[in-house]
Amino acid sequence: MAAVSIMDEFEVHKNEKFLEIAESLRPKLRSRFQPPQKIVEIARTKFGECKVVKERAAAVLQDMTFRKGDKVCLDFGDHMVGYVSLELASKGSHQDAPVFLHLKFGEIPQEIEDKSEDYHGWISRSWIQEEYVHIDVLPAKLELPRRYAFRYMEIEVIDVSLKFSLQIKNAACKAVSAVNFHDVDPINTGDVMLNEMDRISVRTLQECMQDVFEDGPKRDQRLWLGDLRLQARANYVSFKNYDLAKRCLYLFAGMPFNEGKISACVFTEPEPAPDDTYLMDYALLFGAALYDYYEATKDMDTLVDLYPTAIRQIEIVIDNLNADHVVEDPGDAFVCFIDWGEGLNKQCSAQGVLIYSMRYGMRLAKVLGDEKTCQWLEKESELCKKAAVDTFWDKDQQLFISGEEKQISWASQIWMILARVFDVDMSHELIMRTMSINPRIRMVTPYMYHHFIDALIRCGEEERALDEMKRYWGEMIRDGADTFWELYNPYNKNESPYGSSIVNSYCHAWSCTPTYLLRKFFAEKKGWMI
Amino acid sequence: MAAVSIMDEFEVHKNEKFLEIAESLRPKLRSRFQPPQKIVEIARTKFGECKVVKERAAAVLQDMTFRKGDKVCLDFGDHMVGYVSLELASKGSHQDAPVFLHLKFGEIPQEIEDKSEDYHGWISRSWIQEEYVHIDVLPAKLELPRRYAFRYMEIEVIDVSLKFSLQIKNAACKAVSAVNFHDVDPINTGDVMLNEMDRISVRTLQECMQDVFEDGPKRDQRLWLGDLRLQARANYVSFKNYDLAKRCLYLFAGMPFNEGKISACVFTEPEPAPDDTYLMDYALLFGAALYDYYEATKDMDTLVDLYPTAIRQIEIVIDNLNADHVVEDPGDAFVCFIDWGEGLNKQCSAQGVLIYSMRYGMRLAKVLGDEKTCQWLEKESELCKKAAVDTFWDKDQQLFISGEEKQISWASQIWMILARVFDVDMSHELIMRTMSINPRIRMVTPYMYHHFIDALIRCGEEERALDEMKRYWGEMIRDGADTFWELYNPYNKNESPYGSSIVNSYCHAWSCTPTYLLRKFFAEKKGWMI
Repeated sequence: MAAVSIMDEFEVHKNEKFLEIAESLRPKLRSRFQPPQKIVEIARTKFGECKVVKERAAAVLQDMTFRKGDKVCLDFGDHMVGYVSLELASKGSHQDAPVFLHLKFGEIPQEIEDKSEDYHGWISRSWIQEEYVHIDVLPAKLELPRRYAFRYMEIEVIDVSLKFSLQIKNAACKAVSAVNFHDVDPINTGDVMLNEMDRISVRTLQECMQDVFEDGPKRDQRLWLGDLRLQARANYVSFKNYDLAKRCLYLFAGMPFNEGKISACVFTEPEPAPDDTYLMDYALLFGAALYDYYEATKDMDTLVDLYPTAIRQIEIVIDNLNADHVVEDPGDAFVCFIDWGEGLNKQCSAQGVLIYSMRYGMRLAKVLGDEKTCQWLEKESELCKKAAVDTFWDKDQQLFISGEEKQISWASQIWMILARVFDVDMSHELIMRTMSINPRIRMVTPYMYHHFIDALIRCGEEERALDEMKRYWGEMIRDGADTFWELYNPYNKNESPYGSSIVNSYCHAWSCTPTYLLRKFFAEKKGWMI
Repeated sequence: MAAVSIMDEFEVHKNEKFLEIAESLRPKLRSRFQPPQKIVEIARTKFGECKVVKERAAAVLQDMTFRKGDKVCLDFGDHMVGYVSLELASKGSHQDAPVFLHLKFGEIPQEIEDKSEDYHGWISRSWIQEEYVHIDVLPAKLELPRRYAFRYMEIEVIDVSLKFSLQIKNAACKAVSAVNFHDVDPINTGDVMLNEMDRISVRTLQECMQDVFEDGPKRDQRLWLGDLRLQARANYVSFKNYDLAKRCLYLFAGMPFNEGKISACVFTEPEPAPDDTYLMDYALLFGAALYDYYEATKDMDTLVDLYPTAIRQIEIVIDNLNADHVVEDPGDAFVCFIDWGEGLNKQCSAQGVLIYSMRYGMRLAKVLGDEKTCQWLEKESELCKKAAVDTFWDKDQQLFISGEEKQISWASQIWMILARVFDVDMSHELIMRTMSINPRIRMVTPYMYHHFIDALIRCGEEERALDEMKRYWGEMIRDGADTFWELYNPYNKNESPYGSSIVNSYCHAWSCTPTYLLRKFFAEKKGWMI
């Protein structure tokens, strides 16, 4: 199902001061050149998975010649976000026709095997990373102007001519990021899988830290508010690039629209602009993201600037509560994110996010000594918690239900725990019951899994949290992840909310939180070396 | 059948002085901007022809919006050789995905309708003029870096996104040529068709006059020797750009290879280089092209420089005559051009070209007072004529035959007439007989048709020559030619030597000779106004 928002009457009120601050914090990207590490062959196994089945040294490329229909797949050895160049030459008679190439870029082997023409999803096929290029004069240095996110690059020679063949003398990727991976010290947990999980988290985050915190450098390539909150948390325990986080917070606060709402995502090209997409949960979480930033930096100026925006997001949702003092059931409308996953009812989770956000609102108000707001939030929070239990708690099942169909999902339980609707003991019972029952409406994104782990930790289940991280992110690693994926449903590995996994992002910042979780909640307690 | 030459031991001996002269004559291209004139729809008739079936004003484009799958075909009103730019913008929500476009360029409507994936010919499919382009940020000015030859440009929106549509605000072609069309005064023959034939000839020539005399600006895009001779002749009665002709002659003479042979075609990018293709008839005709240039310019320095090259080409062929003093039958080998056309035996025609070229050799020798060479050519010419009659003349059929299979073709008769093997009366009988019998091995290219018209004029059949021009080039005009086509077989309009007409060139310089024929042989005699 297509999940897009289009607002007919979309009135943006730009705050020029905020946007100037954001602009002043635009990072200068670092770059490094990476040659391909191997030449590989990719094939589909009988289980439908695509794997590298043959490898050769990259040096072999220099001696290869390509005729009509020939292909080669370069493996750059790790995930790249950057600009590719190829040095091309001809062999044989003088070049007497253009060279016509088809280039494909894949973060995972499957993208090389999948055929673009088979894609019929609802998200734009323009996100599939491929190019068709003619080269009229050889030798030539082909410098592709677009940025790609990839590890594998397939070069297919659609045609040369009968008189000459193509040589690919050199290939390189100018990899870019706002940060340097080696500036973050690794952790030694004593557990290889956890160490690797941390390393891949940091790599994932690095790849997504560009001009802004991007959600994914392959697809979307832009700043989403819900994603930002998790990326920033991981950043505060790793790269500590506070300016980039600050830049992003000012971008959101600098472009409110109707009623003072802030957008779920903003564009920075050709100039800053908000998307006409309002996601209630993302907007609410702005305050949490602001508080995280303040906690990491103690930057009071930013707090003063952006506090009203955070509080306004809570007000807007409260103003729209229904007669039962709960969030209206959004149904199929794309007004609240929570998680991808077909059929998830989001009413109960949204109420949880509201209460969770009010807690952060109170923290912000306290720092600023805004007692009036603090009291109002405290009162509202109690009302909302009570309304949540009255409306969503199913005494018989001892689980939260959501929507008219009284749906039981993982998300509802988790957000109610994070909202602290119950005390720790009852929350603990609830999370254990949820795991035992394993509701059919499961979690699909690492974004939602993060909140599950957060809930486990809240309930004192730290060891189980580590186990679950290993079962989820660890399984992704075993499935070959160089960076963590946007979507991972262990029950359906080809799941995509877009109609096909070919447009899934396989380096997605909201999946990088293991480094945050490990370093924030475990490192000190367990005495891990950083 | 693939017609390519690849020489294993290809040794080029560059004459730097000649190449410096060629370089010093490189033209500065003129350019002008042309917007599209109309928006058109093209469809295939029940006879398989592609035609414009609907037209709208180009101004409509400004108000159109394009979504996934939408197409528009721009008609620039006439043949263009140049660089295209488009101003693109988005409408609706903010652009949230790249725009993915497929662009097709066609000299004739059929190229827009034909599908590239259906092409399976032997010549490179890279000549099909199409591009796939992603545009990441709108608004954007898309300036395509490659040069196209086209009248029609189809823009297909492969995808945008559900949130925005594409607008094409402006399209323009920066058309380029070494010469200005309006520098040539039109002729008034009193016959609309002949006037149009002259105009289209001049347009065709203009479009092919670029950095060198190109054969066709769509495909090949380079300097072929046989084509040059005809282009230059048309140039001397129209644009009179003597420098470009001189440049081309020096390029051929500046890069001889094994035995002093000159190449059938030369490349100028990335630097001057000859193709490893030797075509006996093309090489022989270098002398005729040199004489034409001298006659037009009286440039004695060039004549002195290039005369040895011209004579050497004749020597090489004479040195390789067989025991009967005729050219060896080339069979299927691509060593002699004469004409495209399946199954044409070229032995007799090649002998004709040799004798024809010796006549020009004698003319050159006379101008330079080189009596020794003149006498040698006179003697050889008589031997070759006698040998031609002995070997190829079939007394019973009163026609020339060629090759082991004693093939009767139009080409053999025509080249024997142009070689002046017989006197004018016998030649006249022969051309009349040929037309009456209409040998099954017909003419396919305007290049060969030019020699047919030349033969008719030689035989005193001027009026018939005009009629035949109207039947051939006039029919092309009625079939919609904006510029004259590389190939035109009135008996098989989709004929292609390449496996599919999608790679045929529809603006081909060797087809531009009507202006030469009309202005050289008719204008003065008939008192036509120029």
